[in-house]
Amino acid sequence: MNTVHIPASRPYDVQIGPGLLYSLGDRVKALCPRAGRCLVVTDDAVGPLWLRKATHPLCAGDLPFHVYTLPHGEASKTAEQLVALLNCAASLHLTRSDVFLALGGGMVGDLTGLAAATYMRGVDYIQIPTTLLAAIDSSVGGKTAVDLPAGKNLMGAFWQPRHVLCDTDTLRTLPEADFVSGCAELIKTAVLFDPALFDLLAREGRDFDQAAVITRCVEHKRDVVAQDERDTGRRALLNLGHTLGHAAEAHSGFALTHGQAVAIGMATVCRAAGKYGICPPDLPAQVEAILEKFGLPTHTDYPLDALMERMLSDKKRAGNTVNVIVPERIGACAVRPMDRDVLRDFMKAGL
Amino acid sequence: MNTVHIPASRPYDVQIGPGLLYSLGDRVKALCPRAGRCLVVTDDAVGPLWLRKATHPLCAGDLPFHVYTLPHGEASKTAEQLVALLNCAASLHLTRSDVFLALGGGMVGDLTGLAAATYMRGVDYIQIPTTLLAAIDSSVGGKTAVDLPAGKNLMGAFWQPRHVLCDTDTLRTLPEADFVSGCAELIKTAVLFDPALFDLLAREGRDFDQAAVITRCVEHKRDVVAQDERDTGRRALLNLGHTLGHAAEAHSGFALTHGQAVAIGMATVCRAAGKYGICPPDLPAQVEAILEKFGLPTHTDYPLDALMERMLSDKKRAGNTVNVIVPERIGACAVRPMDRDVLRDFMKAGL
Repeated sequence: MNTVHIPASRPYDVQIGPGLLYSLGDRVKALCPRAGRCLVVTDDAVGPLWLRKATHPLCAGDLPFHVYTLPHGEASKTAEQLVALLNCAASLHLTRSDVFLALGGGMVGDLTGLAAATYMRGVDYIQIPTTLLAAIDSSVGGKTAVDLPAGKNLMGAFWQPRHVLCDTDTLRTLPEADFVSGCAELIKTAVLFDPALFDLLAREGRDFDQAAVITRCVEHKRDVVAQDERDTGRRALLNLGHTLGHAAEAHSGFALTHGQAVAIGMATVCRAAGKYGICPPDLPAQVEAILEKFGLPTHTDYPLDALMERMLSDKKRAGNTVNVIVPERIGACAVRPMDRDVLRDFMKAGL
Repeated sequence: MNTVHIPASRPYDVQIGPGLLYSLGDRVKALCPRAGRCLVVTDDAVGPLWLRKATHPLCAGDLPFHVYTLPHGEASKTAEQLVALLNCAASLHLTRSDVFLALGGGMVGDLTGLAAATYMRGVDYIQIPTTLLAAIDSSVGGKTAVDLPAGKNLMGAFWQPRHVLCDTDTLRTLPEADFVSGCAELIKTAVLFDPALFDLLAREGRDFDQAAVITRCVEHKRDVVAQDERDTGRRALLNLGHTLGHAAEAHSGFALTHGQAVAIGMATVCRAAGKYGICPPDLPAQVEAILEKFGLPTHTDYPLDALMERMLSDKKRAGNTVNVIVPERIGACAVRPMDRDVLRDFMKAGL
């Protein structure tokens, strides 16, 4: 088992390794000693596979629990589902001392985190990521959110989990498309911070050591979050590929996975950076090659006007500019504020 | 003009006095220099009276603004209205740098505060309380919330305003019932912290100097919030009269005003404290007398069983106990955790 300590305003540990679900009861009791009950939130894809294994240690630890099951998929990450979950917690008379457990991928984690942030003005929650994407990205850092009709993650809060328990066994049941989607964020982390990880992924492809690579990614995320918990500066780097990616994901009506969208966004920004002379000329091809090796797309033919509209409503927009993350070399990227016209020209160069 | 500085995690000032609305444009520009636009949230009772006076200085300051009007009354303080407001902000493409202005009473302030807390994971907001209750209580301290079907304020967040601007002129248009409701919180503050204020209110009745008394109450609230921003200890004192009060308010279907409900709660707890020998024997009659002088009720005939059910679902409940605020003398109260049976006996003694 690997442990990464996250020194946020409310510090917590991320534990990564096989078989960790069995320790869940002990973890909850140790970390939330005043919790009388747990609310386990999951979805109808993960629940049938892992709910029994997750709740058995709660039973063994004599911790009463309730289960709330969401329909799986990004379409459930809505304000309406959030309110329904809060109403459930309220009708169960859960108190400020009780604890929410998020068993699932990013949708379950983000929504449960926001529910924990807003139920009675804040209760503890524990992330139990069951997807690669959630394990390396969304479960760590305390960004919680749901989508609004106008865009992704527009309603949310910063609310740190009490603990993150990543049982790598749960990744075995991850559908192929979700595994590949998560690999896009692995590659993003490598491009941002870690030439050695980039080389390793380029060499080993999909057969990488999961616990080791997840741990490395969580360490990078820790470093960024520690410097910029509330996302006012350096944390923006994590949005590499996300400005165009979120726009493409939304424009597709979520037919594109998050990872596919980020892959397209990353490849597009790298090509643009190459054309503008911001990065070495061979970098775009390197990034395209590794994305293709993992079965991820690198191009979109969605019209630029439609993507521009989405990008300008993105929450990363500050005033009249949009912050775009631009690679300078593998392992070093920069935040560049672009106004509307510059953004359009830049993205056009990469598409 | 009086100014009270609130040293919260994000410090801010409360300005209290007549004619302050005219300085709103300057305030927004000075405090939120990156704001490109404002979203003014109000209700259909306050808007027709004060919206023009509030937005004129925004026009004069060349600050573009949008107006969002809620139906007035506690019934609007719902998750559905919150989400509708967030959708409006998102469809206007408001950014993280923009600012929400809450022009109204507690409902508008609490809901706008939660919208600001959760829009793009947090934007600035300014409280412009137009009721006595909001001026002395809900606009200061960063507690934001909406109600859920299961109870009041069950969905919320701690999110400090950037500024509180209390123009005492706006109190002139306050309906009689709302003015009296606010007086219950004045009396509560006096019972909790301030024998001199208690004597002043008992002597002068409703003709007190508004700016001076509001300032005194805000100073008391500042002291409590400074010691306990997240409401884990001393801040619980502010709930004097609220445990039973919230239950009675909800049971009445909000036919009781908040102040009437708190008055009943306060009087009940004082009578119970008298019978249990916790406070001097003449304290309950003193408190009843001042409440009656202000036209506030001191008794309810709602059945205890129904009130117990509501109290046990109250968010102030921690684990198996409910924290009840009990007066020891005028100016000194204590937090007493009570389990279900003790709570029932105690409230029964006071009803």
